Amino acid sequence: MNSLTDWSDLPDAAWEGCLRRTLWHRAHRQWTAAAAGRALGLVFLNPSLRTRAATELAAAHLGAHAVTLTPGQDTWPLEWRDRAVMDGAAAEHVREAFGVLSRYVDALGVRTFASLTDYRADHDDTAFRAIVAASNVPVINLESARWHPGQALADAATLVDRFDGEVRGKKFVLNWAPHPKALPHAVPNSTLLMAARMGMEVVVARPEGFGLASDVMDLARTTAARTGGSVTESANQDHALSGAHVVYAKSWAGAAVYDDAASEARRRQNNVGWRIDGAEMVKTNGAAFMHCLPVRRGVVVTDDVLASPNALHLLQAEYRLHAQKAILEWVWDLWRDPTYVRA
Amino acid sequence: MNSLTDWSDLPDAAWEGCLRRTLWHRAHRQWTAAAAGRALGLVFLNPSLRTRAATELAAAHLGAHAVTLTPGQDTWPLEWRDRAVMDGAAAEHVREAFGVLSRYVDALGVRTFASLTDYRADHDDTAFRAIVAASNVPVINLESARWHPGQALADAATLVDRFDGEVRGKKFVLNWAPHPKALPHAVPNSTLLMAARMGMEVVVARPEGFGLASDVMDLARTTAARTGGSVTESANQDHALSGAHVVYAKSWAGAAVYDDAASEARRRQNNVGWRIDGAEMVKTNGAAFMHCLPVRRGVVVTDDVLASPNALHLLQAEYRLHAQKAILEWVWDLWRDPTYVRA
Amino acid sequence: MNSLTDWSDLPDAAWEGCLRRTLWHRAHRQWTAAAAGRALGLVFLNPSLRTRAATELAAAHLGAHAVTLTPGQDTWPLEWRDRAVMDGAAAEHVREAFGVLSRYVDALGVRTFASLTDYRADHDDTAFRAIVAASNVPVINLESARWHPGQALADAATLVDRFDGEVRGKKFVLNWAPHPKALPHAVPNSTLLMAARMGMEVVVARPEGFGLASDVMDLARTTAARTGGSVTESANQDHALSGAHVVYAKSWAGAAVYDDAASEARRRQNNVGWRIDGAEMVKTNGAAFMHCLPVRRGVVVTDDVLASPNALHLLQAEYRLHAQKAILEWVWDLWRDPTYVRA
Repeated sequence: MNSLTDWSDLPDAAWEGCLRRTLWHRAHRQWTAAAAGRALGLVFLNPSLRTRAATELAAAHLGAHAVTLTPGQDTWPLEWRDRAVMDGAAAEHVREAFGVLSRYVDALGVRTFASLTDYRADHDDTAFRAIVAASNVPVINLESARWHPGQALADAATLVDRFDGEVRGKKFVLNWAPHPKALPHAVPNSTLLMAARMGMEVVVARPEGFGLASDVMDLARTTAARTGGSVTESANQDHALSGAHVVYAKSWAGAAVYDDAASEARRRQNNVGWRIDGAEMVKTNGAAFMHCLPVRRGVVVTDDVLASPNALHLLQAEYRLHAQKAILEWVWDLWRDPTYVRA
Repeated sequence: MNSLTDWSDLPDAAWEGCLRRTLWHRAHRQWTAAAAGRALGLVFLNPSLRTRAATELAAAHLGAHAVTLTPGQDTWPLEWRDRAVMDGAAAEHVREAFGVLSRYVDALGVRTFASLTDYRADHDDTAFRAIVAASNVPVINLESARWHPGQALADAATLVDRFDGEVRGKKFVLNWAPHPKALPHAVPNSTLLMAARMGMEVVVARPEGFGLASDVMDLARTTAARTGGSVTESANQDHALSGAHVVYAKSWAGAAVYDDAASEARRRQNNVGWRIDGAEMVKTNGAAFMHCLPVRRGVVVTDDVLASPNALHLLQAEYRLHAQKAILEWVWDLWRDPTYVRA
Repeated sequence: MNSLTDWSDLPDAAWEGCLRRTLWHRAHRQWTAAAAGRALGLVFLNPSLRTRAATELAAAHLGAHAVTLTPGQDTWPLEWRDRAVMDGAAAEHVREAFGVLSRYVDALGVRTFASLTDYRADHDDTAFRAIVAASNVPVINLESARWHPGQALADAATLVDRFDGEVRGKKFVLNWAPHPKALPHAVPNSTLLMAARMGMEVVVARPEGFGLASDVMDLARTTAARTGGSVTESANQDHALSGAHVVYAKSWAGAAVYDDAASEARRRQNNVGWRIDGAEMVKTNGAAFMHCLPVRRGVVVTDDVLASPNALHLLQAEYRLHAQKAILEWVWDLWRDPTYVRA
């Protein structure tokens, strides 16, 4: 039973297999009955468009049946704390909710959320971990407080596609971007590790105060050491963009968000110049532009960059469907079926 | 690739084919695998009961898989304006949202809305047009600010059913009805053009101040000239109902709604007598009563009229399912498959 | 055409058949095409997690297609009153809503709600009855103001499972439990009648003021007389728990809720000691603990009881899926197909 809860759940062989299958699925767009008679439960504790549509359809492409729930909307709010006396708004504990759903389905896909107010809960992915603990079937992370592995897989496939497989050694700039709201680190964390894993020359370009968590940076450097890539940080955007083959724009909250949200907001506001526009792209080596979406036009990136043939944001999103298919196959061990795997 | 965005997208041959298939589907109620391996994305930017259920089931009847999204509910609000700096509530631009969905599905079905505050946006169907422009797959109008073609097709099939095919020349009264709220013109516009297309003697009966848009009236008259029908207007309800074979009740906003909503509301209030009751129906030629639903009982029409055997509102609704099947077949060119089309 | 609207709709032969099939389905967990080409409409007028997931999946297991609607969320609020002049918030009457849905599907599953403010409406299950009256296809009660038959069937299967079929004569305590909110009687009513039907020694243990409706108690006693069981009431929890084989905890509103909600709330507050904890369970005959979920931990029951191997709440929930399959088979007469029924 394979779960996909964070980075460590995809060891190299699984990662390579998922990546190969993601590319295969986009090339073939085949509907099969490989997972007929299997059910997938999808639980969205935070809104979703791409992930919901892509995962429901990935299940359908494989012949599986997805059932989607959105607690707080078509069901009641959940209790997360152990030993809570539940006399408030939450009508059901996560243990029962996921204990029950586990008994109906063959895997769960779950989106949780970052509080951005409780550092410990976000860093430990507490909500997502509570769901995994309560579940008796594989759980697929559809974005938690800290990780978004399905996005990383789709992004890796996009890079392989863009560079005809020659991804290693390319300069990949993870470019912090301004935003009206403080945003979680799930995507930048996963993007950073993905690019390191692909053996790229990774630069995390961000203003002072917006560094990613030190344990994630350490993990990325260790990963890069293994793959022949590199990971550095820079507060000098011009320097970072110079010679870049990929500019991956993404906003994320500064470290101060947990202690002093107002100061974090001011600091974001003071760095609106980190937006990617055509002038920034000129500094690169004809770089591809990437973004995980949803993207705020005019704030994170200008319209002209998104309209350029180098913009890969829609291709990334397209690969989400095929990445979800590959992940479902891996979770359900469908590759082991010799009549199924043809790639 | 066939889109169904407004009236002009169903040229006569397609209209005739869709109408024939709608009738065929209701007669046969067959589930097939004609569209197996195809996905339909449904996006509801306004609430729906009939259309949602009918379209999801139409896809299932044909073996296709539908995925349904309701932005603002299970996903975030969208930005519609070109060149907007997106620093407000909208987290994603319609270009990305539909650009992405287009890459997952083989057709989109979309319900937008009329603002009733911005005449130009409503008249130009701006929101719906923005979605069509952002999409790379056929888009099916599930009611926009200005049109509701699936309703018109179901209504046409209902008329063919009611009159054993002898629809031409029958007197069809589109009867404005009172309502507590100002309502869009999508249904009356589509109904008017449908009846004109069917060669009926169409009378738009409405109080002063509630005329339909002049370009729609012109299009209806041109259509009627071609089909041997006629289109007139009357502010005299008694005169209009006299000799009618069909009374189609529907409320819609008066022209003043964009400039002076309070005066439009007063005018609606002053015309509550336009409600259809048993006494009105007596003036007709044993007319069928039609309404697109949802209908406000006691306001638009009285209970006794809805209980009469001449009331076709449930039959109209039933035809919605079969009309959606016909439209999907047309959009996906399934008629061209000689092993499939048997009608 | 079989509807499952309340207790009386499952005569003994049907009850026995459904129970046998529920157990069979859990043992075999088989996906079939028994109901291919059939559609199930699910309408939730109150939130749901288990019932929604279980019923959608039950349909899928049988090859049927479910379409789910939640009025007030993805569609507008409904009008329930006959002869209403609908000039308020409700845009559609239940007659049209269910009249239409009936024409799209082969059965409806519906969850309504108890008002807990209108005794007559709750006692007569007015909302649910209005839906049944408006529908032309079988209606399955997914919990109404007064009954929850699918829960009762799953609970009966859980008891057969727990006691290896030797359910008759076991002492079953339906134990009123404290709760921050006044709750409906649908589950306790159905649980009581289920246990009586199974020939158990049933004790309804509750504080003064929390007796169930006298007609339900009468029906339970009549049922028990027929099955060789018994039904008594007690306000002495210790006495009731003594020798119990099953403790079924459930909160429900006191009789005063309709006339004096504040006094009912105080009375609930005064009886927080009725919570089930480890010390209460010690008084029993090694009893199983049951609860229909959702359960408020620390209020209704303590964590240690839910963690015990005697806790059956997750097994009950698991049986919900299989009970819904059995009910669908019964509603659609699938047992009559000799090629299908193998149990």
